[in-house]
Amino acid sequence: MRIALDAMGGDYAPEAIVKGAILAEKQLPEQYEILLIGKEDIVKALLQEYGYTGTSIKVVNATQVIEMGEHPTKALTQKPDSSIAVGYGLLKAGKADAFCSAGNTGAMLVGAMFSVKAIEGILRPSIAGLVPKVNGGYGIMLDVGANADCKPEVLEQFAELGSIYAKYVLDIENPKVGLMNLGEEEGKGTVNTQAAHQRLKVNQTINFIGNIEGRDVFNDKADVIVCDGYTGNIILKMAESIYDILNEKKMHDPFFDKFNYEAEGGSPILGINGNAVIGHGVSTPTAICNMVLQAQKMVASNLSERFRKNYSE
Amino acid sequence: MRIALDAMGGDYAPEAIVKGAILAEKQLPEQYEILLIGKEDIVKALLQEYGYTGTSIKVVNATQVIEMGEHPTKALTQKPDSSIAVGYGLLKAGKADAFCSAGNTGAMLVGAMFSVKAIEGILRPSIAGLVPKVNGGYGIMLDVGANADCKPEVLEQFAELGSIYAKYVLDIENPKVGLMNLGEEEGKGTVNTQAAHQRLKVNQTINFIGNIEGRDVFNDKADVIVCDGYTGNIILKMAESIYDILNEKKMHDPFFDKFNYEAEGGSPILGINGNAVIGHGVSTPTAICNMVLQAQKMVASNLSERFRKNYSE
Repeated sequence: MRIALDAMGGDYAPEAIVKGAILAEKQLPEQYEILLIGKEDIVKALLQEYGYTGTSIKVVNATQVIEMGEHPTKALTQKPDSSIAVGYGLLKAGKADAFCSAGNTGAMLVGAMFSVKAIEGILRPSIAGLVPKVNGGYGIMLDVGANADCKPEVLEQFAELGSIYAKYVLDIENPKVGLMNLGEEEGKGTVNTQAAHQRLKVNQTINFIGNIEGRDVFNDKADVIVCDGYTGNIILKMAESIYDILNEKKMHDPFFDKFNYEAEGGSPILGINGNAVIGHGVSTPTAICNMVLQAQKMVASNLSERFRKNYSE
Repeated sequence: MRIALDAMGGDYAPEAIVKGAILAEKQLPEQYEILLIGKEDIVKALLQEYGYTGTSIKVVNATQVIEMGEHPTKALTQKPDSSIAVGYGLLKAGKADAFCSAGNTGAMLVGAMFSVKAIEGILRPSIAGLVPKVNGGYGIMLDVGANADCKPEVLEQFAELGSIYAKYVLDIENPKVGLMNLGEEEGKGTVNTQAAHQRLKVNQTINFIGNIEGRDVFNDKADVIVCDGYTGNIILKMAESIYDILNEKKMHDPFFDKFNYEAEGGSPILGINGNAVIGHGVSTPTAICNMVLQAQKMVASNLSERFRKNYSE
């Protein structure tokens, strides 16, 4: 099994990425390899500099880099040999089982749509975020920014995608699905969430527990939090800011430390023909390592294949 | 000046309300009176029990009570002598300069619309929430739940209402207005926030600084946070849950302690012909006291009159 990793993506690339790959390689099951994609001479020199002598990390050359501020579609068109384009090329060709990058989020999303593409039947692939729970473990929230506006039928698919991720990657049996809303009562919410509620209520493939509220993000009410990308993005960034403020105040706690994006590594793109994870721009070696391990779990649980089966049957 | 206070509203009413009134009375300027509205015999007995011997707290009889779970419109129609109906009656008649209640939120909102009514020109009155800032002070966020869906022109009015509150009640000179969004760039967001951005950008009566993100709720980027009630409600309840989790973990800090709803007392209803504040259902005496002091600031700054002038000119 091969996990492709963009060596050039992220604010601290390539150094932090190469270090993260070395950390991850030690923890991956034996049959896994990491394909570090980037400028070959630079990446190889760093591997040497960091004393890597193993054989499980391979380097794949990519001569171009998509910068953080670039326009996704334009950059992908103009830079066919960029690490992101090459990574998706490997994923599409089956030469990699997962692709991870802490680079340009938009390019990662557009790249997925251009290469492996959305699974047939999926209205809108989603970027999901992992949410730590007070009582331990993680829940999954989607969407967290790929789709600002979401129609009710799109929200319904998010519930399905999230349930599959929660079951097979987070190992949660019969994951509880909650619809983020401003009140628990069925009739509460926007026109859109009210309509979504009606769809979720009758969906037999998920375990819908009803509306949840802002106070339920971190408790055990729901394992899968369904919301549009506008809302999920605000929740995620607000949680990050809470971590930053606590950190600034030197207030530490195992639960709140999980708000640190480093803890889980990245945000999976769900609903595409392949396993892809987007890392935080400021990813450190620890974050990169955790992103690779997360991708490994996605590969091991056959996630992308499960999505495909779910929508082709 | 008279501040009417619903003695029967809230989970700990009437005891907590009467205690809160006694606390507030000591801190109010001399020319202020508190009108405690509720079952006269019960309220008077409590005042006596708590040793109140002053003359600034008066009791106004109201024989009925709207319970927390009641349907707002139905309850107000069926209970014309409820403390909420009587309170708004006093406000409308000019016999009270402000009205506060920790009771049924829906009834407080509907009661305002039935009695003092929305200011002419106001599309949708708003319930606003106060947001503590890391560097001290408070910002104001609106809407926090009265209007789940908000058209761009409604969001624009929220920016105006919030700016007036921030200027005159929070004493912030030239308050900065931020539009809650999933990215800073102008083109980011839902169809609705994109349209709102264009309106806010050309509004000469406010100091619009652009889009803000979930990570900016508690920093100094914006004094006035504009969002629909769905979003604001989620942000507010999530902040409350953070306080609860920290409290549970016995992690205390002056900034995070302000997440406790007690600190500021209540959520003002903005855009109506009168000053009204809604308290949290679980309001303690401290919360009630702070709500009364907040109402006093609204009265002293002529808030409702300023709104009226703003839209009649």
